[in-house]
Amino acid sequence: MEVMKVLHMNGGVGETSYASNSLVQRKVISMTRPIMEEAITALYLSILPHPTTLAIADLGCSSGPNTLYVVSEVIRAVENFCREMGHNEPPEYQVFLNDLPGNDFNAIFRALPRSTEKQGQCFFTGVPGSFYDRLFPSKSLHFVHSSYSLQWLSQVPEGLEGNKGNIYMASSSPRSVIDAYFQQFQDDFSLFLKHRAQELVSGGRMVLTILGRRSEDPSSSECCCIWELLAMVLNEMVSEGLIEEEKMDSFNIPQYTPSPLEVKAEVLKEGSFSINRLEVSEVNWSGNKKTTEYNGHQSRNGNLHGEGYSVAMCMRAVAEPMLISHFREGIIEDVFRRYRMLIEDRMAKEKTEFINVTLSLTRNPA
Amino acid sequence: MEVMKVLHMNGGVGETSYASNSLVQRKVISMTRPIMEEAITALYLSILPHPTTLAIADLGCSSGPNTLYVVSEVIRAVENFCREMGHNEPPEYQVFLNDLPGNDFNAIFRALPRSTEKQGQCFFTGVPGSFYDRLFPSKSLHFVHSSYSLQWLSQVPEGLEGNKGNIYMASSSPRSVIDAYFQQFQDDFSLFLKHRAQELVSGGRMVLTILGRRSEDPSSSECCCIWELLAMVLNEMVSEGLIEEEKMDSFNIPQYTPSPLEVKAEVLKEGSFSINRLEVSEVNWSGNKKTTEYNGHQSRNGNLHGEGYSVAMCMRAVAEPMLISHFREGIIEDVFRRYRMLIEDRMAKEKTEFINVTLSLTRNPA
Repeated sequence: MEVMKVLHMNGGVGETSYASNSLVQRKVISMTRPIMEEAITALYLSILPHPTTLAIADLGCSSGPNTLYVVSEVIRAVENFCREMGHNEPPEYQVFLNDLPGNDFNAIFRALPRSTEKQGQCFFTGVPGSFYDRLFPSKSLHFVHSSYSLQWLSQVPEGLEGNKGNIYMASSSPRSVIDAYFQQFQDDFSLFLKHRAQELVSGGRMVLTILGRRSEDPSSSECCCIWELLAMVLNEMVSEGLIEEEKMDSFNIPQYTPSPLEVKAEVLKEGSFSINRLEVSEVNWSGNKKTTEYNGHQSRNGNLHGEGYSVAMCMRAVAEPMLISHFREGIIEDVFRRYRMLIEDRMAKEKTEFINVTLSLTRNPA
Repeated sequence: MEVMKVLHMNGGVGETSYASNSLVQRKVISMTRPIMEEAITALYLSILPHPTTLAIADLGCSSGPNTLYVVSEVIRAVENFCREMGHNEPPEYQVFLNDLPGNDFNAIFRALPRSTEKQGQCFFTGVPGSFYDRLFPSKSLHFVHSSYSLQWLSQVPEGLEGNKGNIYMASSSPRSVIDAYFQQFQDDFSLFLKHRAQELVSGGRMVLTILGRRSEDPSSSECCCIWELLAMVLNEMVSEGLIEEEKMDSFNIPQYTPSPLEVKAEVLKEGSFSINRLEVSEVNWSGNKKTTEYNGHQSRNGNLHGEGYSVAMCMRAVAEPMLISHFREGIIEDVFRRYRMLIEDRMAKEKTEFINVTLSLTRNPA
């Protein structure tokens, strides 16, 4: 979880990276909004006569421009639905914003809307901790949301010694490496489901979007390409003597991008949830098909950067803390200069997408 | 609330001030522990057959060594009681730590016990906001605690123009100033009660300790002395031309130290709570009657400081942010050098105590 910790702590790479990072996530949230709306309105209707309080958790909320976006969309959906239904007293909302203890909760709290500006009667709380642990009392939540967080494993899997020259699952990774990653995903995701099953009320809902893949091949380039490009950079720097080979060989990303079937299998195995929807979508690496107008912004020295720059900066926000803690700070500028060029090159040649697996679940009666 | 905000943000004056500040508060918490224990066990017994979750809020939790102390005492009391009663399944605890959004919640969250070290099944959350606003959904809390926070008003009262030469209520303050302070206290405390009445379940308990006074005279030196000494310092610096007189005249502390009767009157007027206990206690300015061994510590330059130093540092942690925002940073060292001497002098001559008004309340059935 430590890596996730530094990930979430990282808001300091600069506004550029943060904004571009947020662009992909915001796009994903808005793409999955109909699924969220369907879930929250069905939940609302399931509580009779109607709910006085809805307890909503966003797991892996991070700290940035998207932190409150999901929650505000959820509340807006309920408020709209209440209006349509002619319910004059919409519920109160208790919103739990969760991330690791290293997340910048101070920044979130200082940016919260004042009571007069809030939609509805909405009470915000911060919950520090790993979502692979219990975070809430039994049967205390109605709705759980998580976007772009569950692909992060609780730790780098054990048994990756054979993954030389790679930093993630790759076509050249031995079977043992693929198995170790998959085992860690299964352990983590089933634990996540087990804990949430205890925390959600019967009939409670969960909408999860996970960075994943369509293919059943875990080393498919559709999910691994972005890390393979980074591995190419690091290998190049090993060959130039800028990075020690041993250091490179022991560096692995604690992520698993599952297929819809793998996600489904874990849900069925755990047994506490019914699957309402399981959908796959994709989003361009830059967060939009037509992004030039958004991403083609001026840098401080006046150069006009393209999409490749934004994607590299986005990946930098994610990868820099891991690289610094494993290698050393001195290599960072060089790494991302090279990485950016490879990303630009790849984006010019291929359709480059992140694949999202979105899951809408209902807590079965206990 | 802004002043309270800077107060709570202030943890940066140094460990010395923080430690001495914490000594008084820790002493007060341990003195009022029997009242808290009585309240939480009575609450436990009132929930039949027995509670599965207890929602506990600490309002004005600050960020420092005492932040988790109260909560751990509350949980320890329940766990002990469960053992005595032979209840093998103690409840889960949802702990809400509240303070203003400027409080350092990151520091609290990073210092939380790991799940393996926790007493019982305890879930911590941070709640940013003023306790003079609603903070929680209706009927969502079982137990509310607040220590040494409710003497802070939501704002400096209006109508203090006549309080020249003073910075708080003083024997020389005109009646209009005393009235303005009292009115602000009544408005704030009744609002506090009204909001908590909505948030607590029927039968829910509240234990509040407020810095107060025994006397019915609001400008009694038992509560105002510590500020009068600071006013003396500022007046001295006005006479030496170091501070502008106008600046001094417009500076007032947003605090009201109520008598037990004033507190009782507001509770009765608001009407949602029954009073179980209303007690007055006192604690030496240095947090202990025999404090030399705790407070007589080495400073960085090797001087041995006494109790006066500790008290001045404690008051500095509270007053410095207000002084800086009203006057200017340049005067601070001078102010506290002089203040310390006056405090030492007073402590040598008189019994110097803070008076605590402790209130144990039960939410009446609605």
